[in-house]
Amino acid sequence: MKRVQELVDTALGRSDADLVLKNARVFNVFTGRFTTGDVAIVNGYIAGVGSYSGRKEIDGTGKFITPGFIDGHVHLESAMVSPAQFACAVVPSGTTTVIADPHEIANVAGLEGIRYMLKATEQLPLNVYMMLPSCVPATRLEHAGATLKAKELADFIHHPRILGLGEMMDYPGVLQKEAAIYEKIRLAEGKLVDGHAPGLTGRELTGYIAAGIRSDHECVTPEEATERLEQGMYVMLREGSAAHNLVKLLPAVNQYTVKRCLFATDDRHPADLIAEGHINHMVRLAIAAGADPAWVLQMATINVASYFRLDDLGAIAPGYRADLLVFDNLEEWRPVMVFKDGQLAAENGKSMFMNFFVDDKWVRNTLCLGELSRDKLRLPAHSSVARVIGLVPHQLVTEALELPVPVVRGEFVPDVSRDILKLVVWERHKGTGNVGVGLLQGLGLKRGAIASTIAHDSHNLVVVGTDDDAIMLAVKEIEHIQGGLVIAGDREILGTLPLPLTGLMTDRDIGEVQEKLAALHKIARSLGVKADYDPFMTLAFLSLPVIPALKLTDAGLIDVVNFQLMPVSVLSENIV
Amino acid sequence: MKRVQELVDTALGRSDADLVLKNARVFNVFTGRFTTGDVAIVNGYIAGVGSYSGRKEIDGTGKFITPGFIDGHVHLESAMVSPAQFACAVVPSGTTTVIADPHEIANVAGLEGIRYMLKATEQLPLNVYMMLPSCVPATRLEHAGATLKAKELADFIHHPRILGLGEMMDYPGVLQKEAAIYEKIRLAEGKLVDGHAPGLTGRELTGYIAAGIRSDHECVTPEEATERLEQGMYVMLREGSAAHNLVKLLPAVNQYTVKRCLFATDDRHPADLIAEGHINHMVRLAIAAGADPAWVLQMATINVASYFRLDDLGAIAPGYRADLLVFDNLEEWRPVMVFKDGQLAAENGKSMFMNFFVDDKWVRNTLCLGELSRDKLRLPAHSSVARVIGLVPHQLVTEALELPVPVVRGEFVPDVSRDILKLVVWERHKGTGNVGVGLLQGLGLKRGAIASTIAHDSHNLVVVGTDDDAIMLAVKEIEHIQGGLVIAGDREILGTLPLPLTGLMTDRDIGEVQEKLAALHKIARSLGVKADYDPFMTLAFLSLPVIPALKLTDAGLIDVVNFQLMPVSVLSENIV
Repeated sequence: MKRVQELVDTALGRSDADLVLKNARVFNVFTGRFTTGDVAIVNGYIAGVGSYSGRKEIDGTGKFITPGFIDGHVHLESAMVSPAQFACAVVPSGTTTVIADPHEIANVAGLEGIRYMLKATEQLPLNVYMMLPSCVPATRLEHAGATLKAKELADFIHHPRILGLGEMMDYPGVLQKEAAIYEKIRLAEGKLVDGHAPGLTGRELTGYIAAGIRSDHECVTPEEATERLEQGMYVMLREGSAAHNLVKLLPAVNQYTVKRCLFATDDRHPADLIAEGHINHMVRLAIAAGADPAWVLQMATINVASYFRLDDLGAIAPGYRADLLVFDNLEEWRPVMVFKDGQLAAENGKSMFMNFFVDDKWVRNTLCLGELSRDKLRLPAHSSVARVIGLVPHQLVTEALELPVPVVRGEFVPDVSRDILKLVVWERHKGTGNVGVGLLQGLGLKRGAIASTIAHDSHNLVVVGTDDDAIMLAVKEIEHIQGGLVIAGDREILGTLPLPLTGLMTDRDIGEVQEKLAALHKIARSLGVKADYDPFMTLAFLSLPVIPALKLTDAGLIDVVNFQLMPVSVLSENIV
Repeated sequence: MKRVQELVDTALGRSDADLVLKNARVFNVFTGRFTTGDVAIVNGYIAGVGSYSGRKEIDGTGKFITPGFIDGHVHLESAMVSPAQFACAVVPSGTTTVIADPHEIANVAGLEGIRYMLKATEQLPLNVYMMLPSCVPATRLEHAGATLKAKELADFIHHPRILGLGEMMDYPGVLQKEAAIYEKIRLAEGKLVDGHAPGLTGRELTGYIAAGIRSDHECVTPEEATERLEQGMYVMLREGSAAHNLVKLLPAVNQYTVKRCLFATDDRHPADLIAEGHINHMVRLAIAAGADPAWVLQMATINVASYFRLDDLGAIAPGYRADLLVFDNLEEWRPVMVFKDGQLAAENGKSMFMNFFVDDKWVRNTLCLGELSRDKLRLPAHSSVARVIGLVPHQLVTEALELPVPVVRGEFVPDVSRDILKLVVWERHKGTGNVGVGLLQGLGLKRGAIASTIAHDSHNLVVVGTDDDAIMLAVKEIEHIQGGLVIAGDREILGTLPLPLTGLMTDRDIGEVQEKLAALHKIARSLGVKADYDPFMTLAFLSLPVIPALKLTDAGLIDVVNFQLMPVSVLSENIV
């Protein structure tokens, strides 16, 4: 609790601080400069920077102190671990606050998923704020575990850690003025509405902003960023595991625009968290790319706090929370100490806090596949040419191919010699029996099947395989482990990463997760998966029908450009 | 009403705007640049800047458009006219929003005064937001018309046009942790607390900021401004009628600090409003002094809006209110057109709107002087040396003089030959009979008396005169006109400016007020008042016991440095 009068007494030097970090070079986010001084902390708040005594004193001579880093937009579930483990991973890297969008878990477990994330993040030495998922399900051509309209979200909008409405991905709906969308935007009045508008430009962008949407993290070019900044949007420069936009966007950051620029990761996989870091990685990257270090630190701290109206975060000044990073150099950006509310939370890259893992029945046993029948995998052929999803290396876009595919007993079958595999999206929340079946080219898999229950955004079960036996083997294992990642060989399971919390996260620690993932990648390579692809990342986006050109959901094959279901068979009159 | 879907349609070009300002150079507060385009307005909001058609179109070729200017801190009462007339005065100068602190009227009429100001400003083509007066009365050594503690203010804190707690002038009380002050600060949780901390520095400033006080407008040097900015405060650069700090503070404004710098006038007298302008005058002055014009425009618009969380003001971008200024050059800064919510509110320096004057019984007949007895003016002498308030040209500070003063029948009497006059502060809210009597040197008045019911902050009746007859004549006239400014000669009233609304404001128009004031100044000069002094400004501050060294309130003579009442007589053992 911020006991203001005690803070004033400490600031005045009338009483000793709880803790003083003495004689350090302290970064001032308001002036952009480092100045030498003592940072006085009492009751978890900064009383002031100057000359102070404390009951406990730490010598900061030769050290640099900055505010804790803040991630403006992240899906905690992307790390595949519980929120508690996520904190263990990111706090030692210097992240003390994140603004999370729990749409992954909401797509599986609905309101209970959101409730779980709030509960699981209450006690962490990481401030976790959230935006309410605005697009669950993401589109009408897929089925998620829940449908969240304004009336469902209304329960949560006033929670003190909910800062508004999360990334409004359905920009066509915004521009077509769909009532349900505007009800959600109205719900967030007085709070914020985040955006997600890849490629939107000109009048469409203006219309999207006019709807009240205040930020975007999907810019890939500085021109896009400038077009958004000009019209009052805040731009989140994104550098995550899927998207690497930071360096390219830096030219849009100048002395006028920087104050509405802030850092975000969007997603962060275990390997990247362990090897590179989190927001500190962005700081390192941006400074190495030549950006003004003061601006970079502002974008990682006070600018995020300002956008989100978190008035006591992001600076080292009287009245701010004592979330502080101590560095011994300004090149590596790995903090030697991380203080959270004035308590030491991490030292030399290791977290100093207990595992705060919170369990909940609502996030377990979420898999409901219905009848595990091979008939679900049938792919009737009405011609000898099929629409095939063509992978593109290092891209989330796919090609809409039309290829001759072998037909056996009236069905299209995989053709490993031409790298054409069967792809399946099996509804897994309510056991509806919906299974979308299609074909995929380009992955390289020579035998077996790879399955995942991480499949944006509805997180149904996606499987790719060389034959139905391997695919069913993988499906059964997925049911057995209640969701996760599975690689099946011809006859046996070769490797699994169980993700029993909604099929997206594990309760195990992140180091173990990283090892299992590395092992699974090795297995995938040994089965032929091309080096161009992280098979699980690839699978995770094959079911996302907002990125062109051809995708597969539990409803079937989707022509993304025209946003409609398509038959797999290319009939003679359709052949181009 | 902001009909969002209509805004989106207009932004998309799907439907015509209500009004388009075509082909103008439009200032972008986010990028700091002017770009050419059409500004499309619908329902009083900006739909976008680009290429648009409207039901009505105005050719903006060769013109410059900026957002309307915003005053971060002003006492409307300082213009001596009703809020409606204040709007008539400032809107043509380009001010479309002010944040007012109604402590003047609150000191006279308490909560009803605040209620009146809210009511009187509801319908104006000027956005008037307010801060709740935090220091009524200003000190314990004077008596105002009301006492406003946290429980009184609680009625108003949630009003949508109340943005927080106004200038916390009682900084000793803040540093001494007086409970009543912290109750008020706590009341403003979630809103803002403005500060007023002249000369505060070092640990005392840090303590003041630690109490949660977020802005200051009392800086006189760039070092003071920097010391505040460094610790997270917003600095209001002030240029009003009493204080002229703007140009001197400009060195504190740099690319890092500018975002927390904003413009404010604090007070603005009729003559200055008419001759120079308002915030536009600050813009002109700052640019002429060499400040970056983009920063200057930001400090006059978006920076004020950002501090106060007025999310739809201060920029020309989708979703912002259409408060716009049209200039035909960027030197004079006199707008040729002022739009308020998309309607033309002023053209070529003339307001285009009706007089929205609102009357109210609570703000009339506020004068209560008690018995008008000459005995009240008695000044017993217990020695031949008196403490005399010494005026200092062009300063609000006074000197604490000790001078031999003639004694007649046991009382100190004025000595016109040595420019020693009688000064009186007569309690006028509740007829308590309290009258503080003292002596003043330096004004130059040779005969007659000058009286005013504008006397910061308690606004009791202050009178200076050469003899008791003239003083009583002035007092009686003040009662007759129910407050205002009066100059009495030996036997007759030489001039008055009635201010029947709480003794601070008139219901007449500002041009008439300015003429009457000019006439009164002429009369004052003819009676000997030195050219160094505006007599009413001087009188207005003689009763303010927060500025050193010697002041007079209805309680008596105040030694400001030690904050205690002093006898007028200097007794031999006290003679220094």
